[in-house]
Amino acid sequence: MSILTEHDGVHVLTIGATENRFTADLLTAIDEALDHVEAAPAPLVTVAEGKFFSNGLDLDWVLANPDELGPYSARVEALLARFLTLPVPTVAAVNGHAFGAGAMLAMAHDWRVMRADRGYFCFPEVDIRIPFTPGMAALIQAKLTPRAALDSMATGRRYGGAEAEAIGLVDATATDDRLLADAVARVAPLAGKDAPTLGAIKSTMYADAARALRHEQPQT
Amino acid sequence: MSILTEHDGVHVLTIGATENRFTADLLTAIDEALDHVEAAPAPLVTVAEGKFFSNGLDLDWVLANPDELGPYSARVEALLARFLTLPVPTVAAVNGHAFGAGAMLAMAHDWRVMRADRGYFCFPEVDIRIPFTPGMAALIQAKLTPRAALDSMATGRRYGGAEAEAIGLVDATATDDRLLADAVARVAPLAGKDAPTLGAIKSTMYADAARALRHEQPQT
Amino acid sequence: MSILTEHDGVHVLTIGATENRFTADLLTAIDEALDHVEAAPAPLVTVAEGKFFSNGLDLDWVLANPDELGPYSARVEALLARFLTLPVPTVAAVNGHAFGAGAMLAMAHDWRVMRADRGYFCFPEVDIRIPFTPGMAALIQAKLTPRAALDSMATGRRYGGAEAEAIGLVDATATDDRLLADAVARVAPLAGKDAPTLGAIKSTMYADAARALRHEQPQT
Repeated sequence: MSILTEHDGVHVLTIGATENRFTADLLTAIDEALDHVEAAPAPLVTVAEGKFFSNGLDLDWVLANPDELGPYSARVEALLARFLTLPVPTVAAVNGHAFGAGAMLAMAHDWRVMRADRGYFCFPEVDIRIPFTPGMAALIQAKLTPRAALDSMATGRRYGGAEAEAIGLVDATATDDRLLADAVARVAPLAGKDAPTLGAIKSTMYADAARALRHEQPQT
Repeated sequence: MSILTEHDGVHVLTIGATENRFTADLLTAIDEALDHVEAAPAPLVTVAEGKFFSNGLDLDWVLANPDELGPYSARVEALLARFLTLPVPTVAAVNGHAFGAGAMLAMAHDWRVMRADRGYFCFPEVDIRIPFTPGMAALIQAKLTPRAALDSMATGRRYGGAEAEAIGLVDATATDDRLLADAVARVAPLAGKDAPTLGAIKSTMYADAARALRHEQPQT
Repeated sequence: MSILTEHDGVHVLTIGATENRFTADLLTAIDEALDHVEAAPAPLVTVAEGKFFSNGLDLDWVLANPDELGPYSARVEALLARFLTLPVPTVAAVNGHAFGAGAMLAMAHDWRVMRADRGYFCFPEVDIRIPFTPGMAALIQAKLTPRAALDSMATGRRYGGAEAEAIGLVDATATDDRLLADAVARVAPLAGKDAPTLGAIKSTMYADAARALRHEQPQT
């Protein structure tokens, strides 16, 4: 099946039904889905099935391919930059655990709706001893208040849905059976926004974070 | 009449009683008023009369003078930078609709009080297909939480007074008959702040946004 | 006595029992204490005894040694940068008045707990006519919402504990007899975080403010 379907004029990107770590295949599939979204602009909901939204980096593969860490990490960051500046309204429907780069994928969307009763939103970087890259830190800090950024990035704390909503990691919570519908309802009214204009607005607002994610020099 | 009057030791700048778009004449009149404020430092309230605070750019003139868009936009941005770093306490009394660059004018003040029962605060850029310049985006983002900035800048949503206060676009709301008095009361106690010191503080706090509005290079 | 003691696996740095202004001796004593903390990483609580947390710069000494203002200010800023990026969890237990650079010292910690019933948290710069340096402004702005930064930095307002908590200058308040225990309890559970990782995370998150405090060039 395709990982991209359509509900009420909204693209729904389903990134998997397992831990949904960023394997090379998943990265390619998501990039191709975004190509389609850009070719047929409409709001986008990203979701997964089961207990996990995404557990982030494919650490087993990284451990088996240590020489590839740099290019692999750069590819993940480039995908985050692409979501951050995507020229359509975007919302992550966080159906379950969102950890590390999986949580960053959610942060790269315009908005986040999280399942209220199960799953944790967590940046475990301080505990797994992998500091944020400058781009990843800039992405998260571009979306949160300073306090919420520090609390979530410096402690490794796992936030349930209500806690994540309270500090602004997510914009809303929903019961499992309402999650996708609420996410769709949040962006469906924004269908019809001019894609080049919206892309330009997000690219300007998040220029610094996008440049850092793409390993580009600061603007002069 | 002069557009600058005085209430309880506070300068009151009345920018008009129509749509109060930024015509060349209005820009000149405001700049001259600010010259007077800087020469006789005291807190400043900016307000208008009737249904509109300001509808922003003079789009009819821009359409009739397309070759002048660059210099015109630069002049509006320079005025926003001047308000942003003005060496006196400033508050916008948003008496009615504040759209686009009119909403940006309000954001360039230190604080905003909005009429509770009428008028919308709105950045329509995504709908009129005119992306924010880097300076305009930096100005708005310098005054709002990341979530409020995205919500207001990427959707074109029109916020009534209560909604604008709830997300922090404005600091307070007031009934029509209390609006000017509440705005004056907010800054009157700050009379006597040393103007060069306050100007230096705001210029340092908003250095990046002011540079972008003035099309200057980043500091090195 | 040493100014560094230990409670429940947490370092407690007591900066004095007077106004605790940043004399050369106090700066040296704090730097040596931080050397010890870095050599034996564990969470850090900074506190004082009596009516004052810290009144900031040693203005009498500055007035008597005007030629030394530059190096002195740079040394204070360097210490603020060191706290800002310290590789252990940090909390300021604000036992009393925190003014100017004393309030900045509190802001340079990860979190702040303030005594509820006595003491003011205040940036008096606008009233004493000493504008913030770019580094000091960047430090404060890196920790607050835009509104809280402007309200506290442009007005000279003195915030009691409850008011400071309401706008986010501090994260919590406590009665005098609970202050130290609450501060210790806030960071004790974070013992064991890998110091190099946490230091890298904070150095990345606050890179711009730290560079400005250290008078370094922006990253290119």
